[in-house]
Amino acid sequence: MDYAKESLKKHAEWKGKISTELKCPLENATDLSLAYTPGVAEPCLAIKDDIEQSYNLTMRGNLCAVITDGSAVLGLGNIGPEAGMPVMEGKCALFKKFAGVDAIPICVKSQDPDEVAHVVHMISGSFGGVNLEDISAPRCFEIERKCKELCDIPIFHDDQHGTAIVVLAGLINALKVVDKKAEDCKVVTCGAGAAATAIVKLLLSYGFKNVTMCDSKGVIHKDRDDLNWIKKEMAEVTNPEGITGSLADAMVGADIFIGSSAPNTVSKDMVASMAEKSIVYACANPTPEIFPDDAKEAGAFVMATGRSDFPNQVNNVLAFPGIFRGTFDVHATDINEEMKMAAAKAIAGMVSEDELGPECIIPSPFAEGVGEVVAKAVAEAAIASGVAKKK
Amino acid sequence: MDYAKESLKKHAEWKGKISTELKCPLENATDLSLAYTPGVAEPCLAIKDDIEQSYNLTMRGNLCAVITDGSAVLGLGNIGPEAGMPVMEGKCALFKKFAGVDAIPICVKSQDPDEVAHVVHMISGSFGGVNLEDISAPRCFEIERKCKELCDIPIFHDDQHGTAIVVLAGLINALKVVDKKAEDCKVVTCGAGAAATAIVKLLLSYGFKNVTMCDSKGVIHKDRDDLNWIKKEMAEVTNPEGITGSLADAMVGADIFIGSSAPNTVSKDMVASMAEKSIVYACANPTPEIFPDDAKEAGAFVMATGRSDFPNQVNNVLAFPGIFRGTFDVHATDINEEMKMAAAKAIAGMVSEDELGPECIIPSPFAEGVGEVVAKAVAEAAIASGVAKKK
Repeated sequence: MDYAKESLKKHAEWKGKISTELKCPLENATDLSLAYTPGVAEPCLAIKDDIEQSYNLTMRGNLCAVITDGSAVLGLGNIGPEAGMPVMEGKCALFKKFAGVDAIPICVKSQDPDEVAHVVHMISGSFGGVNLEDISAPRCFEIERKCKELCDIPIFHDDQHGTAIVVLAGLINALKVVDKKAEDCKVVTCGAGAAATAIVKLLLSYGFKNVTMCDSKGVIHKDRDDLNWIKKEMAEVTNPEGITGSLADAMVGADIFIGSSAPNTVSKDMVASMAEKSIVYACANPTPEIFPDDAKEAGAFVMATGRSDFPNQVNNVLAFPGIFRGTFDVHATDINEEMKMAAAKAIAGMVSEDELGPECIIPSPFAEGVGEVVAKAVAEAAIASGVAKKK
Repeated sequence: MDYAKESLKKHAEWKGKISTELKCPLENATDLSLAYTPGVAEPCLAIKDDIEQSYNLTMRGNLCAVITDGSAVLGLGNIGPEAGMPVMEGKCALFKKFAGVDAIPICVKSQDPDEVAHVVHMISGSFGGVNLEDISAPRCFEIERKCKELCDIPIFHDDQHGTAIVVLAGLINALKVVDKKAEDCKVVTCGAGAAATAIVKLLLSYGFKNVTMCDSKGVIHKDRDDLNWIKKEMAEVTNPEGITGSLADAMVGADIFIGSSAPNTVSKDMVASMAEKSIVYACANPTPEIFPDDAKEAGAFVMATGRSDFPNQVNNVLAFPGIFRGTFDVHATDINEEMKMAAAKAIAGMVSEDELGPECIIPSPFAEGVGEVVAKAVAEAAIASGVAKKK
């Protein structure tokens, strides 16, 4: 199927992938008096007295804003806020389908980090949480931090944390397949954007010790003078062996490669230089850093990509719907590290002992019950870490 | 029924009066590839090339933002943005029910007119139109004007224009009942806020000549030195006889009284001082300026209120759903005076010759087909006045 052509045709037919629907009856004057005036004054006053009541008396408690500034949409780059809408709407549809979360797409007509964060704050009173989406690095880190400072609702940048959670979920299983321990593995990433940065942070927090990042110029290390602020920060906590040089240099002897960069950046020779039973994630989309067949020929033992037509797809839909479901279920005020870790472990746990193998470290996005399992784990972690208002 | 108590209970059960629902299938990997990656890249690129395509390829073309700053919610006053949410959500539900318009509630956490307008502009790329709601006067005029300047989508402040349209619709019919002509009538309003100001502007534009406004201090005239900027503006175009004094003074000999002010501001004596076959609108809610029984005893021939338990309810739901339906149907870039006038005439036309009488100048909000009839008239007016992009 020509997905591009067919998708354009479908979008023109759908004219929107979500709609709003009624949850209250509006058939007669009595219905109107309860849902609207004069009755509606009472829930208004209840919220005026206690803003917390907005989570019980309006849609807010189940409502996520999916927000972009259009600066890094898919692999298309900075195509502007309006052009990001089909992705945001798609995300909203996935939220509903996979976890019953109401979500609406908002594109912000500014790419100034302060202004984007300000707008998010200004409208945050209508929502239970915010999913930031397709915002370019390093601006995304700044916008996420500022939104978290300004708003009293959970802020989650899916391109960072959703990806990191699914990558870690797969690695937890892959380590069983290759019988290695996280703390013994040498990990090399290619890419130093939103996803790679969040992946590395989550891996370190899980217990990986030896992680080295590479960007398009090569290995990220403390002595480089061309690093932006976030890469400088990452240089402080990665590359314990003080490697310098190219990606190819870094990959020699590596147990795990994680690409979230550009098409065809990894050669068969580079994969062949890795340690025994290597694990290769080639997540550039739609064209991966190296295609699975080539990587396997070169010796990769476990292989994951971002594509649905190969085994082990790193698909964020495994994570974000359940994460927001769990967050909303216990009215959590944050989506913290404990909750992200719990989500990764829950997703990993969806692969049974029987299924586990090189071709199955990550469950299918359509695996029965993923959303519920992730939601439960995230809700429990929210309670345990003290950010849940409801138990 | 105790509407207050029952409404609170219902709101706690509903937990939101609207939800989001899917319009596209998401059952398998192919569905996902069309609604989301990789297929979704194509509609994104189509919109990047031509932003107009966002109206065809996303929900935008049928999506209205219902926006408040919580500064004048119902008769409750300035209760804050979050507390306004139940009303905004109710409005969104009415949009869907009465005209199939998707609408979502947005409360803005600022009451600074520049900032509210700025936020509306920043998020306007996601929407086909904006319905401003429950914003206090005279700030609402400034916010509306600024939003119109900044945004390239239709901006409609329902408390002004929706009310004015339904009031005029009723007056068109009432004039037939009392057999008077608009240009011969003396009209007096009590109230000089959002609704009264818009009502007066629309009446003048319809052909009424002699309109006098009163605020809580009495008649608005050019020599008063306590008028805010909008009242000063209105003093220039109203009160052709140069009346001074109190509301009671102004009402002597008036053919039409329109109250959108405060409970019990009009006495039976004041109604009795009006001309023969007087028309009295007492729209303060829930307690009108004068109750219908009292007004009729005092000689009012036609009586309208804002309440559903008396005949002739001035209910904006007769107007706003069909107005946005018509606006969206032809992708109008504005909701202009011609479209408002067309809506008023269309609503008036929903009362048949047979039904027409003192007890029936305004159709019921549940009258079959109001939304469609208003939409058609508004769409035609949009085309005729040159603001429609689609025909």
